[in-house]
Amino acid sequence: MAAKFTPLHDRILVRRIEEAETTKGGLIIPDTAKEKNQEGEVISVGTGRINDKGEVRALAVKAGDHILFGKYAGTEIKLDDEDFVIMREEEVLGVVTK
Amino acid sequence: MAAKFTPLHDRILVRRIEEAETTKGGLIIPDTAKEKNQEGEVISVGTGRINDKGEVRALAVKAGDHILFGKYAGTEIKLDDEDFVIMREEEVLGVVTK
Amino acid sequence: MAAKFTPLHDRILVRRIEEAETTKGGLIIPDTAKEKNQEGEVISVGTGRINDKGEVRALAVKAGDHILFGKYAGTEIKLDDEDFVIMREEEVLGVVTK
Amino acid sequence: MAAKFTPLHDRILVRRIEEAETTKGGLIIPDTAKEKNQEGEVISVGTGRINDKGEVRALAVKAGDHILFGKYAGTEIKLDDEDFVIMREEEVLGVVTK
Amino acid sequence: MAAKFTPLHDRILVRRIEEAETTKGGLIIPDTAKEKNQEGEVISVGTGRINDKGEVRALAVKAGDHILFGKYAGTEIKLDDEDFVIMREEEVLGVVTK
Amino acid sequence: MAAKFTPLHDRILVRRIEEAETTKGGLIIPDTAKEKNQEGEVISVGTGRINDKGEVRALAVKAGDHILFGKYAGTEIKLDDEDFVIMREEEVLGVVTK
Amino acid sequence: MAAKFTPLHDRILVRRIEEAETTKGGLIIPDTAKEKNQEGEVISVGTGRINDKGEVRALAVKAGDHILFGKYAGTEIKLDDEDFVIMREEEVLGVVTK
Repeated sequence: MAAKFTPLHDRILVRRIEEAETTKGGLIIPDTAKEKNQEGEVISVGTGRINDKGEVRALAVKAGDHILFGKYAGTEIKLDDEDFVIMREEEVLGVVTK
Repeated sequence: MAAKFTPLHDRILVRRIEEAETTKGGLIIPDTAKEKNQEGEVISVGTGRINDKGEVRALAVKAGDHILFGKYAGTEIKLDDEDFVIMREEEVLGVVTK
Repeated sequence: MAAKFTPLHDRILVRRIEEAETTKGGLIIPDTAKEKNQEGEVISVGTGRINDKGEVRALAVKAGDHILFGKYAGTEIKLDDEDFVIMREEEVLGVVTK
Repeated sequence: MAAKFTPLHDRILVRRIEEAETTKGGLIIPDTAKEKNQEGEVISVGTGRINDKGEVRALAVKAGDHILFGKYAGTEIKLDDEDFVIMREEEVLGVVTK
Repeated sequence: MAAKFTPLHDRILVRRIEEAETTKGGLIIPDTAKEKNQEGEVISVGTGRINDKGEVRALAVKAGDHILFGKYAGTEIKLDDEDFVIMREEEVLGVVTK
Repeated sequence: MAAKFTPLHDRILVRRIEEAETTKGGLIIPDTAKEKNQEGEVISVGTGRINDKGEVRALAVKAGDHILFGKYAGTEIKLDDEDFVIMREEEVLGVVTK
Repeated sequence: MAAKFTPLHDRILVRRIEEAETTKGGLIIPDTAKEKNQEGEVISVGTGRINDKGEVRALAVKAGDHILFGKYAGTEIKLDDEDFVIMREEEVLGVVTK
């Protein structure tokens, strides 16, 4: 579904990567005890950052990138009952390459 | 009626899309328990963003666009007894295309 | 009287349009229960917005325009015992054309 | 005395116009019940606003102008036992011409 | 001693002018009841304000000027047991010429 | 593992240098009594700082540099169970050369 | 030791000049009753302030300068068990020449 959403300008749509729901010892972690993960996959990106002259600079991240972001980055949004985060490129800390 | 309102510069007039008033199980959700929806339809847009030199850049959203916006975006306003939100283009998160 | 006041630079002088003082059912609304209306008529405008280089850009609103503005826009001022609001063009949300 | 004070750059020296000390009905208003008036007469003005390049733009108000200003504008100062307000041109709302 | 201090860039060194320590009626005002005076004499000035391009603009005040400044302007500093205020030119309200 | 992470733009990935866990007298310092160390080793750096025109300036620190940084600099992040700090070049105080 | 530290860009490394630990009358002032001194000696300086275009402007203070700085300037840091302050050139009030 998310393919149908186009972020504006320098914003990107990110699907948060959920952490395993059991501890290494096998215990189930209840939802309320979990910290939100700061990793995600970029689903789609805007056309770029517009400066005051109207010039556009393409973003440095692209769909498919695996990124890290700050704990309070972006805005949580629900699309077709799935949770996403929309953030500005500036809030991305960097890209993980495996 | 809203057609009679022209937003200034980089502002846009948005009609909030209300969510269904019954839950999937058929229960009616009272008004006070509903969160405001962050989806809307763009009704009209300003002539564009003016920079410090007086140059105008046309907006990236247009009337008819179905957009998502932040929870605290814009200013609520009532026109002919209907509720609208007026926000700056910068507060738009992205466009939904079905 | 207001004709005698010239707003400076990008400021405009606005006369707030008061809402009807009776409800549709005919009840009189006491003053303390009324919200301030966010509609007004532009009475006079400044020569324009000055940028850092001293260049002037004329304003997009003009005397006679019927405008909407934010709830906390501008400064209330009394001229010849009549109430006005002085605001910057930036605080104007848009123009209503009937 | 005030003639001996030259405001710096984009600042202006203003003498507040005091309101009548009796109400229309003839009652004397005690000092503590009076609001500060937002009207004043410009006594002297600086050479102009300096931008980051050192270019000077002359001010739009001049000595003798009768102005309105915001409730919290400027700094109160006492010169030869008389009260004045020193404010930046930016804090002036507009000019009253009778 | 103060001659040995050179303020940096757009800063100036100011000696506060103390007010008379007796009232007109001859009463001595204790230190704790006195307000800090907002008048001072400029002792020395920096080479000027540097903009982002490294260009220097000489200051509009000079050593010997008698100035007024805001109540919270600058930083109090003690040089050879004498009290001074170091402030930026921007905090100077204007120059008094007798 | 950290080699697989590329910081974005003007951000850098830093491994904090932990202080000795015993005092000089041989006492073990419990975790809760330790202050976070403000020294670290740069692991990887972004491509550089982008200005408003899209021009990139390479960073002044490089992988392998031993740096000092402010107490509240950057964002703590965990990569493969090891703790790192991601900060902007602007938060780096300087480089230690032994 | 401090010679081994190079401040970044417009930062400088400063050794605070401690005040005498006895009063003029010979009393010893306990540590907790002492105010931090706002004087220091510049130990080393960065390569200069970088503007948005990447152009560098050399600093106006140099190693060996005796400076005054604001009470809350800079960041306290310990290098080889000696205390230093790292601050930006902008926080330096001026230079003392004896």
